[in-house]
Amino acid sequence: MGKLVIVGTVAFDAIETPFGKTDKILGGAATFIGLAASQFEVDSAVVSVVGGDFPNEYLELLESKSMDISGVEVVPHGKTFFWSGRYHNDMNSRDTLATELNVLADFKPVVPENFKDADYVMLGNLHPNVQLGVLEQMEKKPKLVVLDTMNFWMDNTWDELMEVIKKVDVITINDEEARQLTGEHSLKVAARKIQEMGPTYVVIKKGEHGALLFNGGNAFFAPALPLEEVFDPTGAGDTFAGGFIGYLASVDNVTFESMKNAIIYGSTLASFCVEKFGTERMKHLSANEVRKRLQEFKKLTQFEIELT
Amino acid sequence: MGKLVIVGTVAFDAIETPFGKTDKILGGAATFIGLAASQFEVDSAVVSVVGGDFPNEYLELLESKSMDISGVEVVPHGKTFFWSGRYHNDMNSRDTLATELNVLADFKPVVPENFKDADYVMLGNLHPNVQLGVLEQMEKKPKLVVLDTMNFWMDNTWDELMEVIKKVDVITINDEEARQLTGEHSLKVAARKIQEMGPTYVVIKKGEHGALLFNGGNAFFAPALPLEEVFDPTGAGDTFAGGFIGYLASVDNVTFESMKNAIIYGSTLASFCVEKFGTERMKHLSANEVRKRLQEFKKLTQFEIELT
Repeated sequence: MGKLVIVGTVAFDAIETPFGKTDKILGGAATFIGLAASQFEVDSAVVSVVGGDFPNEYLELLESKSMDISGVEVVPHGKTFFWSGRYHNDMNSRDTLATELNVLADFKPVVPENFKDADYVMLGNLHPNVQLGVLEQMEKKPKLVVLDTMNFWMDNTWDELMEVIKKVDVITINDEEARQLTGEHSLKVAARKIQEMGPTYVVIKKGEHGALLFNGGNAFFAPALPLEEVFDPTGAGDTFAGGFIGYLASVDNVTFESMKNAIIYGSTLASFCVEKFGTERMKHLSANEVRKRLQEFKKLTQFEIELT
Repeated sequence: MGKLVIVGTVAFDAIETPFGKTDKILGGAATFIGLAASQFEVDSAVVSVVGGDFPNEYLELLESKSMDISGVEVVPHGKTFFWSGRYHNDMNSRDTLATELNVLADFKPVVPENFKDADYVMLGNLHPNVQLGVLEQMEKKPKLVVLDTMNFWMDNTWDELMEVIKKVDVITINDEEARQLTGEHSLKVAARKIQEMGPTYVVIKKGEHGALLFNGGNAFFAPALPLEEVFDPTGAGDTFAGGFIGYLASVDNVTFESMKNAIIYGSTLASFCVEKFGTERMKHLSANEVRKRLQEFKKLTQFEIELT
């Protein structure tokens, strides 16, 4: 059972989709990553910051899912990071209605003492300097560092992002971001160029079109499960990443073969996340439901052609 | 070895992509379908029409690939169907520059006598009445009829299209067309509604995002192989369909399991088609190259997760 450090936002989200809208509910990258990773036998700690307005029940939820939250700073007179967005009818695009950094603006991550020797580190989508700050606190080189990032950091903090990209083993980004990062349209070419920047493994998330894993000359693909409806895509990418690193930490093995399974687990968990608003589905997800859906994934993708 | 009847255009194409442009070259749905099907042990006949301007060498090419062309009518004083298009930089969209129906306008398909008992029929993208005309000439119910169509026929010949959809076993259309045909955004829901229109099997082509097969509660997915570059997408969908039905006719088996393999073969052959202009790549494709790429497909999609 590997130790896993997760840095990322713990936040309030307010979401509008064609199916409805929410008030301020529990959200944030670290929240979704941690909930997904909690499906595995892994010792995880969340490094984040919230304000005095953050309900205790949310923190208790994370703890109840076996997360160490001693690295979640509470700023008594501060306000929790807030994001609000509205999804379009096709669910593939969204408008950001509000982003209030609040306590996140001055966030100085602190990795708990007993997690400084963790072998697995998930750098959730945040300012690259915060991500670097976590890496600098690790006492030994982790077996695997996974970086998630987005176009905002490419637009605004390119140099800092390049610094952190150099230091990670895996990067997870979406297809448009892979193209922006490299100026290449072909994802195969883009993945090769990103590997030259640092990460040995490149995971390209294509939303409803699945996810690709590249490593040297190897490639692996997992589709998204075809769903009757996508209720709320918020957190799907983080859930994917949490399932990915959670699986790897639990098997404590970072070969290409185990990463293939990690991609399948990530896709499987993400397929649940989008079924309800926010964290609702992930909060109440049983191992049995996950196993059944993995079976669906196998049926969806596995075939028998004997090649001589 | 099953008999296969292919109805579709045999045509001139003129293509512009970011990589270059062609004069009038060999094209047409039946051409691409037939070339793909020729990779399998199958007895195929093309039903089509060309003008007196159509070079003998093109007809000889089809014959050299074991196609019976006695059902290709030559109208001595007519001109061959001509299509011209320009692809955008992302290769996912194109503008049609010219469509000259010419001899296609009065096309009355004639199925060769010795193919009227064929078990496999591929209705390439054409006016639904032409597709119906072929089905009416079959002396017995084929084991499998596959229909390809496009948005143009939905816009202009809805009632006729519904008549032919009722009579087929498989439909292959792209994602946007599946949505247009049903008014449903979810491809899973769309596939269910299309099955209510007639076809037992629905194949939804998503271009660079792969293809989905639906049959009752079963679903299967094949990705497109990640490519360094797509040189010319023309004919990829027809090549997919030709590989699909060619495989099924060669194994003479129409279960869901064999259709999964057919989808994989279709995707594999389509991945070659796009590497060069028009039919250039498919004309010179060896069984060994196909086998190697199938191996790539297996590596790309197959994984080992044991579920207890």
